[in-house]
Amino acid sequence: MSKIRVTVWSEGLDPKLEPKAVACYPDDINACIGGFLSRHDDLQVTLHTLSEPENGLSQEILDNTDVLIWWSHLYNDQLSDEASNRVVEAVLNGMGLMLLHSSMGCKPARAMLGRNSNGGKYREIGERERVWVVNRSHPIMEGLEKEYIDVPQSEMYGEPYGMATPDDILFISWFEGGEVLRSGVTWHKGAGKIFFFTSGHEEFPTYHLPEIQKVITNGTRWLKPTHTPGLSFRGNLDKVTPLSPINLEGK
Amino acid sequence: MSKIRVTVWSEGLDPKLEPKAVACYPDDINACIGGFLSRHDDLQVTLHTLSEPENGLSQEILDNTDVLIWWSHLYNDQLSDEASNRVVEAVLNGMGLMLLHSSMGCKPARAMLGRNSNGGKYREIGERERVWVVNRSHPIMEGLEKEYIDVPQSEMYGEPYGMATPDDILFISWFEGGEVLRSGVTWHKGAGKIFFFTSGHEEFPTYHLPEIQKVITNGTRWLKPTHTPGLSFRGNLDKVTPLSPINLEGK
Amino acid sequence: MSKIRVTVWSEGLDPKLEPKAVACYPDDINACIGGFLSRHDDLQVTLHTLSEPENGLSQEILDNTDVLIWWSHLYNDQLSDEASNRVVEAVLNGMGLMLLHSSMGCKPARAMLGRNSNGGKYREIGERERVWVVNRSHPIMEGLEKEYIDVPQSEMYGEPYGMATPDDILFISWFEGGEVLRSGVTWHKGAGKIFFFTSGHEEFPTYHLPEIQKVITNGTRWLKPTHTPGLSFRGNLDKVTPLSPINLEGK
Amino acid sequence: MSKIRVTVWSEGLDPKLEPKAVACYPDDINACIGGFLSRHDDLQVTLHTLSEPENGLSQEILDNTDVLIWWSHLYNDQLSDEASNRVVEAVLNGMGLMLLHSSMGCKPARAMLGRNSNGGKYREIGERERVWVVNRSHPIMEGLEKEYIDVPQSEMYGEPYGMATPDDILFISWFEGGEVLRSGVTWHKGAGKIFFFTSGHEEFPTYHLPEIQKVITNGTRWLKPTHTPGLSFRGNLDKVTPLSPINLEGK
Repeated sequence: MSKIRVTVWSEGLDPKLEPKAVACYPDDINACIGGFLSRHDDLQVTLHTLSEPENGLSQEILDNTDVLIWWSHLYNDQLSDEASNRVVEAVLNGMGLMLLHSSMGCKPARAMLGRNSNGGKYREIGERERVWVVNRSHPIMEGLEKEYIDVPQSEMYGEPYGMATPDDILFISWFEGGEVLRSGVTWHKGAGKIFFFTSGHEEFPTYHLPEIQKVITNGTRWLKPTHTPGLSFRGNLDKVTPLSPINLEGK
Repeated sequence: MSKIRVTVWSEGLDPKLEPKAVACYPDDINACIGGFLSRHDDLQVTLHTLSEPENGLSQEILDNTDVLIWWSHLYNDQLSDEASNRVVEAVLNGMGLMLLHSSMGCKPARAMLGRNSNGGKYREIGERERVWVVNRSHPIMEGLEKEYIDVPQSEMYGEPYGMATPDDILFISWFEGGEVLRSGVTWHKGAGKIFFFTSGHEEFPTYHLPEIQKVITNGTRWLKPTHTPGLSFRGNLDKVTPLSPINLEGK
Repeated sequence: MSKIRVTVWSEGLDPKLEPKAVACYPDDINACIGGFLSRHDDLQVTLHTLSEPENGLSQEILDNTDVLIWWSHLYNDQLSDEASNRVVEAVLNGMGLMLLHSSMGCKPARAMLGRNSNGGKYREIGERERVWVVNRSHPIMEGLEKEYIDVPQSEMYGEPYGMATPDDILFISWFEGGEVLRSGVTWHKGAGKIFFFTSGHEEFPTYHLPEIQKVITNGTRWLKPTHTPGLSFRGNLDKVTPLSPINLEGK
Repeated sequence: MSKIRVTVWSEGLDPKLEPKAVACYPDDINACIGGFLSRHDDLQVTLHTLSEPENGLSQEILDNTDVLIWWSHLYNDQLSDEASNRVVEAVLNGMGLMLLHSSMGCKPARAMLGRNSNGGKYREIGERERVWVVNRSHPIMEGLEKEYIDVPQSEMYGEPYGMATPDDILFISWFEGGEVLRSGVTWHKGAGKIFFFTSGHEEFPTYHLPEIQKVITNGTRWLKPTHTPGLSFRGNLDKVTPLSPINLEGK
């Protein structure tokens, strides 16, 4: 079986602006995530980052990506529109996309999910989060040891969050300060799938937690493209197919 | 405009077994709910209870009911199968059904929603519940003053709850002890609608809270039947309609 | 009861480019729709069009609109970004939006629903469409006389259509040439609701059909804003609310 | 990788009552389906049928089944309640269930999906069906060569069909006589998944069509159980967990 080609992309951490994040993830968050993913034989991992040429998202890179894992929060505006469009086209053609933390604010996510509210709600005090399984049957739950995952310190994002109504809800989070969030949800877009998983933060060692690593690993596998080469045609059917593809004569 | 005919049904409270409940709702829970509903000119309220003939759910009562509000938890087995079937038929033909508290366990709810899990999770210690609005646009939110409703003392039901996947999620609750629940959800069944709203308990004065009363009042209006007299046919079309209801000749 | 303020907006018809459309709708499509809506006492109708100052969608107009009905297909690019943004903001704050025919391609729809596919499929030969009711319980079905609506001549849009997964599916259409479409669907966005209803075409008298008029009339009522003045706050909760809005002391 | 243990179960064909079916499927439908599934190395297939002891659904059989494929239409009442309950329990604990053709009427399906309408609509004249892909991204589409599958002769089941609102819609069918159906849909129940796929009939060689075989093969893989041993606890949390599983002291 051929390996799943995973690109872990992050916007990078600024040692001056984000010293606590650098302390948590000295080689950047993409290296942490790529590190635990690459311990699995079926995953072939490559790292890229915003500061590279073409924002680390050239056509060649995307053509060799089955699943793109995305981490951004501060520098969404620095992504070029061209790079964003390339990501969107790749997803619509089948590439999987995992949106971590607050990555729903990135350009390609906004392009595919649309504007759904006039703002969001958050609190950054390192409170506890408990991530509850809602759909036990989903392959993203494979091997979880409890009905919830405890995240000792987290940033709160809370309902009403104003996300596009998900196709499926996998997790709902409880926050110590009194809020809840649909924190693990999926959508499909064209031939591609999206998994949004918020639990993770640059200043806390969330991505070192074994159960969080399981969810991200399972999510990567679930995002693997479905190959349907025959399903790509679009356009004006007047010009390219017969009027009645089914023979209705004589009925 | 004709009034909405609302039947508030409850299983009744046993003064010996449930003294705290009787202290909270001396005239029974249906009287409390019927009381605040009947202050609205567009609602015409009738009360019924399990101990009446035909379990208070005779065909005549149901034929004169637009919306049935249901409260039960302990005595679900005492409802006759005949009464349950009458309720199911009424919903499939358009009657609205509001399931309060743990009423998802009642026979007609189980008949329409099916078995979805091998059990549920609960805790009854009077902890705080915060009921968050997820879908601000829904008419059941009309007039709410905040993005959440605080219930000072509640019984916890928690995810993974094993409910039939809802058509729409309106509320998600936070519980002080660490759980979450999709606590206000809707389904449609045939020509009828169901609104399941868990926040409420017989030993706490939940149904006296103004915001909870608003949700139940709005929910009653939302459950009003849609009249589609022409949509009732079912059966084998071989026998009753022409083979090709659309003329396909000559195409 | 105060009336629902309905603005029926269209891009207008060009007598030279669209003579058949002008023959069908001599006073433009918005006048046809506004005409049958204004026969209902609870609806107060105003007409606007793309060629007016500020594209007929000034802030003043939108501030006085409860429900906006939209008809466009050819001139979506002529709408200013400012007008599109005003419409999006109005929906997120509660205004209802009905998207007719192929109006899913208009700027505000694309902004809220996102990019969902790399193209669509259509055929414009005047074939028959049969619009099937999927959800009989929805208020948009009020008074329908059959389980389907026959549209003698229609333009085909077909699955896989690449729309954002709907919150709820109300209608699915059958087309004579062999295609199907989720042709009546809803979403919520912030405090507002969207109803997309494709059955209707500028060159056929679809909007003169009584059952289509019923759906549009019912849809207008369903799109009425929900008033939740207390639900508007957004922002960083660190700065504006106490850390623990629920008192957790002593637990 | 261990094989997926697939049990293909059918009610059996009566040579006297169903001679056309026997001509199409001389060794019964389960043998036909098991035959093409067993050509795949990752699937280990066993056949069972209604007439066996314990209806071919003993606890031992179910304990050794990862995915159960079900074919029934005429003899649903002959299944014992005990066998039905064993199937329901197995699904809630993770076993996948594929419901073919009209198998939604079987006891375990009715037990899990509930009553959703007061009847259904069908026509059995051997008309054409075109099965359209709605969600291109789903693994059940793997390898499909077109955006639709043509079934030359089919039995029609039509909307409004009165099924429990699906978690996800994969296929919508077009029927020559004018109807449509959500013909490939999924639900999750407890730890298990259900795939309902209607396209197939005992009197037509539907299950010999290569594209239909692909969907059933992909569906079998998709239904593979997710292993979450830690997620099985249910019950009264008063008795088994501390009141505050998260330490709220000092906040």
